[in-house]
Amino acid sequence: MTDNITRPQPITVLGLGAMGAALVRSWLSAGHPVTVWNRTPARADPLADAGATVASTAAEAVAASPLVIACLLDDASVDETLTTTDLAGRDLVNITTSTPAEARARATWAEKRGARYLDGGIMAVPPMIGVEGSGAYVFYSGDRHLFEERREALTVPAGATFVGEDAGFAALHDVALLSAMNGMFAGVAHAFALVRREDIRPSEFAPLLSGWLVAMSQSAGKVAEQLESDDYTKGVVSNLAMQVAGSATLLRTAEEQGVSAELIAPYLALMERRLAEGHPDEDTTGVVELLIRR
Amino acid sequence: MTDNITRPQPITVLGLGAMGAALVRSWLSAGHPVTVWNRTPARADPLADAGATVASTAAEAVAASPLVIACLLDDASVDETLTTTDLAGRDLVNITTSTPAEARARATWAEKRGARYLDGGIMAVPPMIGVEGSGAYVFYSGDRHLFEERREALTVPAGATFVGEDAGFAALHDVALLSAMNGMFAGVAHAFALVRREDIRPSEFAPLLSGWLVAMSQSAGKVAEQLESDDYTKGVVSNLAMQVAGSATLLRTAEEQGVSAELIAPYLALMERRLAEGHPDEDTTGVVELLIRR
Repeated sequence: MTDNITRPQPITVLGLGAMGAALVRSWLSAGHPVTVWNRTPARADPLADAGATVASTAAEAVAASPLVIACLLDDASVDETLTTTDLAGRDLVNITTSTPAEARARATWAEKRGARYLDGGIMAVPPMIGVEGSGAYVFYSGDRHLFEERREALTVPAGATFVGEDAGFAALHDVALLSAMNGMFAGVAHAFALVRREDIRPSEFAPLLSGWLVAMSQSAGKVAEQLESDDYTKGVVSNLAMQVAGSATLLRTAEEQGVSAELIAPYLALMERRLAEGHPDEDTTGVVELLIRR
Repeated sequence: MTDNITRPQPITVLGLGAMGAALVRSWLSAGHPVTVWNRTPARADPLADAGATVASTAAEAVAASPLVIACLLDDASVDETLTTTDLAGRDLVNITTSTPAEARARATWAEKRGARYLDGGIMAVPPMIGVEGSGAYVFYSGDRHLFEERREALTVPAGATFVGEDAGFAALHDVALLSAMNGMFAGVAHAFALVRREDIRPSEFAPLLSGWLVAMSQSAGKVAEQLESDDYTKGVVSNLAMQVAGSATLLRTAEEQGVSAELIAPYLALMERRLAEGHPDEDTTGVVELLIRR
C-alpha cells in the first residue's frame, strides 16, 4: 500500500444501537474502513452487508483501528466492554451518554491505560446523522490534540463543537441543553393542554407557539449578560414584580381550563420567592441563584 | 372638513401604563387623533405634549371616539372604568390582561351595553410597539366585523392575528404562549444553574442553548400532528421508554452539579407516569392528557 495518508482512516465503533449504527453507515459512506462490535452480534449483520468488518470480541475491535468510538448504553457498559481491551496508543472517543463526573472519571481511567480520551455528547437523533444540513452536531471535550487530529473523521456524521479540555464539559453541555429542552417541552405540553378542549386546531396553534418560543429563546443571551455582569436589573423590560403579577393570570387560566399547573407552577413559585427576598426590579435571572445549593 | 374618509380615525385609549402610552405614541405618529384618559392624570402629561387630547373623565374619553381601546390593570379595572361610560355604538377593543372566562363575560357585558367587542392579547413588551420588524403582534378574538373594519388602525402599533369569534380565544392564546415561554425559561434557568460554577462563559453558552431551543421548538408541529390523529406513536424517533431512561442522566447531573431539579422534575415524573401506564412506544405527547382534569 502506498499513499496511505490520503485514505480515510480506519475507525472502530463499539455499540450498534440506533445511534451507533447510524454513525457506522455515515463513515462507511465516506469511505472509511469500519470495524464494528456489539454485545448482541446480530445487530452487526446489516452493517456487514454495508461493508463493515465485524469483530467477534471488543478486544479484537479495539485492536483493529487507532480511532475507537464507544457508543454504548451507559458508563457501566463502557467499563464492562473496554476492561478486556488494550487501549494503549488508541484514541478513545466516548459518546456514550454519561454525567460530567462519569466522563471525567472515564478520561482519567482511559489515560492511565495509555489512550488519549475525548468525550462526546450528541445533539441529534439517529435519523439526523450523516444528513447534510440536518443541524446535527456533537459536543466534544477532553484531549484537544485528539480532537484536532481526528476532526476530519469526526465531522463526517455530524458537526463538531469543542467545548473545553475538561472531559466533563461535553456531557455538561449536552445535559444542560437537554434539560432546557425538557423545560420547553413541559411548557409546550401545558399550552396544548390549555387549548385541547376548545375549538382550536392543534396544527394552527403549533406554528404560533413555536414562533413565539423561537422569538423568546433569544432571551438566553440577556440572562448570560446579566449573569456575567452580576447585575440582574441590566436591560430589564418586564421586571420580576410585573412577571409575578402576570403569573396569577396564567394560574387562573389553567384552573378555568381544567388543566393542572404542575408543570409551570414551580418556576412561578421561584419567581415569587426571589421577589419576596426583595428583588422587584430584577429580571427573572435571580431564579438561577435559587437553584444552586450552597 | 371635507374628505373625512381618508383621514386616520380618532381613537380613545383608556389606561396609560407603559403599554397604553406606547400604543398612544404609535397612533399619534401615524396621524390618528388620540384621546387619552388615565386614573392618575399626571401620566397623560407627556402624551398631551406629543399631541394627545386629555379627557378628564373616562365617560368623556369614550364619547370622543368611535374606537375605544382599554389597556388597564385587570378586568376589575375595566369594569370600574367603563361602568360610568356610555358604550352604545362604540367599538370596544379590550387588550387588558384577562383570563378567557373574563374576556367572554366582558364581551357579553359590552354587547348588552350596545358596543361591539373585540378582545386582545398583546405578544410584545412596550419597547416593541410601533417598531417595524420588531415581531410584536396582538391576538384578537370576538367580533370579526369590528376586527376587519378596524384592522388598519389596529395594525399601526403591532401585527394582528385574529384567532376566532370566541372572545376568550385571544386571552387563551396569549396565556398558552406565555405559559409555554415560562416553561422554556424554567429550562433555561436550570441550564445556566448547571454550568454556573464551571469555567464556562455564560455568553458562550447562551447561543448554543438558544440555537438548540430554536431547533427543538419545531417539535410543537409534531405534537399537534399526534394530537390531531390521536396517535401518539406517529413519527416517533425517541420513544417514551428512551426518554424516561435518559431522564436519569439529567437528574444525576443536577445532583452532581449541586443544582435543584425542582424545575425539570415534574415533567420527567409525568413522562414516567405515562410510561408506567403502558405507553413505551409513544412520543411524550401523552403528557398532555395527564394534565387535563377529567
